[in-house]
Amino acid sequence: MAAKLPLIQRLCMIGVGLIGGSLARALREAGEVGEVIGCGRGEVNLQTAVRLGVIDHYDLDPARAVAGADVVVIAVPLGAIEAVLRSIVPHLAADAVVTDVGSAKSSVVADVARVYGQIPPNFVPGHPIAGTENSGVEASFATLFQRRRVILTPLAETAAAAHGLIKQMWELTGAEVVDMGVHHHDAVLAATSHLPHLLAYTLVDTLARLDDRAEIFRYAAGGFRDFTRIASSDPTMWRDICVANREQLLDMIALFNADLAQLAEAIRHDDRAAILATFQQAKRARDNLYLE
Amino acid sequence: MAAKLPLIQRLCMIGVGLIGGSLARALREAGEVGEVIGCGRGEVNLQTAVRLGVIDHYDLDPARAVAGADVVVIAVPLGAIEAVLRSIVPHLAADAVVTDVGSAKSSVVADVARVYGQIPPNFVPGHPIAGTENSGVEASFATLFQRRRVILTPLAETAAAAHGLIKQMWELTGAEVVDMGVHHHDAVLAATSHLPHLLAYTLVDTLARLDDRAEIFRYAAGGFRDFTRIASSDPTMWRDICVANREQLLDMIALFNADLAQLAEAIRHDDRAAILATFQQAKRARDNLYLE
Repeated sequence: MAAKLPLIQRLCMIGVGLIGGSLARALREAGEVGEVIGCGRGEVNLQTAVRLGVIDHYDLDPARAVAGADVVVIAVPLGAIEAVLRSIVPHLAADAVVTDVGSAKSSVVADVARVYGQIPPNFVPGHPIAGTENSGVEASFATLFQRRRVILTPLAETAAAAHGLIKQMWELTGAEVVDMGVHHHDAVLAATSHLPHLLAYTLVDTLARLDDRAEIFRYAAGGFRDFTRIASSDPTMWRDICVANREQLLDMIALFNADLAQLAEAIRHDDRAAILATFQQAKRARDNLYLE
Repeated sequence: MAAKLPLIQRLCMIGVGLIGGSLARALREAGEVGEVIGCGRGEVNLQTAVRLGVIDHYDLDPARAVAGADVVVIAVPLGAIEAVLRSIVPHLAADAVVTDVGSAKSSVVADVARVYGQIPPNFVPGHPIAGTENSGVEASFATLFQRRRVILTPLAETAAAAHGLIKQMWELTGAEVVDMGVHHHDAVLAATSHLPHLLAYTLVDTLARLDDRAEIFRYAAGGFRDFTRIASSDPTMWRDICVANREQLLDMIALFNADLAQLAEAIRHDDRAAILATFQQAKRARDNLYLE
């Protein structure tokens, strides 16, 4: 009787950080990956990844790293995806399926179209809605995606088999996989992730510029810690997200600004009913958030 | 040999919610309070407080509740403090020490001056920098103040003995007690607590008004949950804080707005260096926050 083959024979992980490392770990724990080749710019991080058993070995050259891989996962900041694609596309196996984990999808699809010259059937844009404020392979863990959602944004040109393989891959990590349109994904993420990160970064930056910042940070209590935790996230990754999802993000900032201005006016004019109504509405929405 | 007397013979807790309840629990556990009388507007909550052993009994009438108390703690929303003071001041024991737990101090001092007709020696304005997003006596717990800071803002008129007694009371809960000027307290809290709460409320409110809010909340991930947790806080309490600390809060909103506008401009003009610099600065500040 032949042993059951793993879902993925040879996985090439380009970018072995929090997300890439956690995905590799989860697939290994599921016993559904034969061999994992890492690739990235930081050799020390890749050495750590080998030492931690997250990857089997690595190659600093993306062209060599993807050779013979049946699945290639691009888990680098959005701003680096186009360059990665340029370096790997000529060297991919004919039936290799490529996916990414970028937090904005329109820009990735544009990168793909530019590099391939068309939308290829074997590229499946993806985005796991999971993460922590920590970066690097040392922050990765196999259960990161359990009970989290992974959004795939397949296009009309995407092959059903490729889509199905990437869906299966993510389901093995314990995630729930859902499909969404590219533009819709970017709108939802601008609201729920990109804007909150921007506000957290801005708040910390505002306070860090105050004269009495040392004292101010000393008195920062529980709510502030939670609120600003995401300001510890990787600045390059978030710079790239702002650039990649610019229009949707600027729209959300404008909506938020209008609401904040309205609340500030209510405070200025001592309109207690309006202030209370806003807070009650928000509390109701927040309390109901995760109960649906 | 006489038994050691507790620090407080008869404590009157006006407002037996998260803060008042937790303080009473902590003092009981320390064995430093003889009897605890609760007072408040919600009789069901007071009955719960008796059942949970947080208070010994209660009186719905503040005038009767404070009778014979050596310490009176006012733990009600800021907007209710003046009315509470009016109802208790004529009935206080001559040597009773009164304190409050309000999140803004200028407005409390103004209330005190109005009601007493002067700053009395036995009123010690206080503010424990602790809390959760939950409200009511059922959310209270004895360790809430452990290793947290409690700020006292005594005035020139405040008696050293009263100040010392309230300091000792808080130290028994495991808190670190620090003194601060009234105005300075309000500035620090506007930055570290009031502004973040306002941003969280506004963010949730902004998203709750979007057409696809149901779907948007479904995709809200980890960072968003942390970020918006404080939007579950008590709306009345926060309405009162906005009213009480209006000027300082409006100043902070203006600073934040200017920073956010600058970041939005950088995003609009694809100024990647400026975006990255802001995020790096914020990450550095956040990561160093709690290391001092």
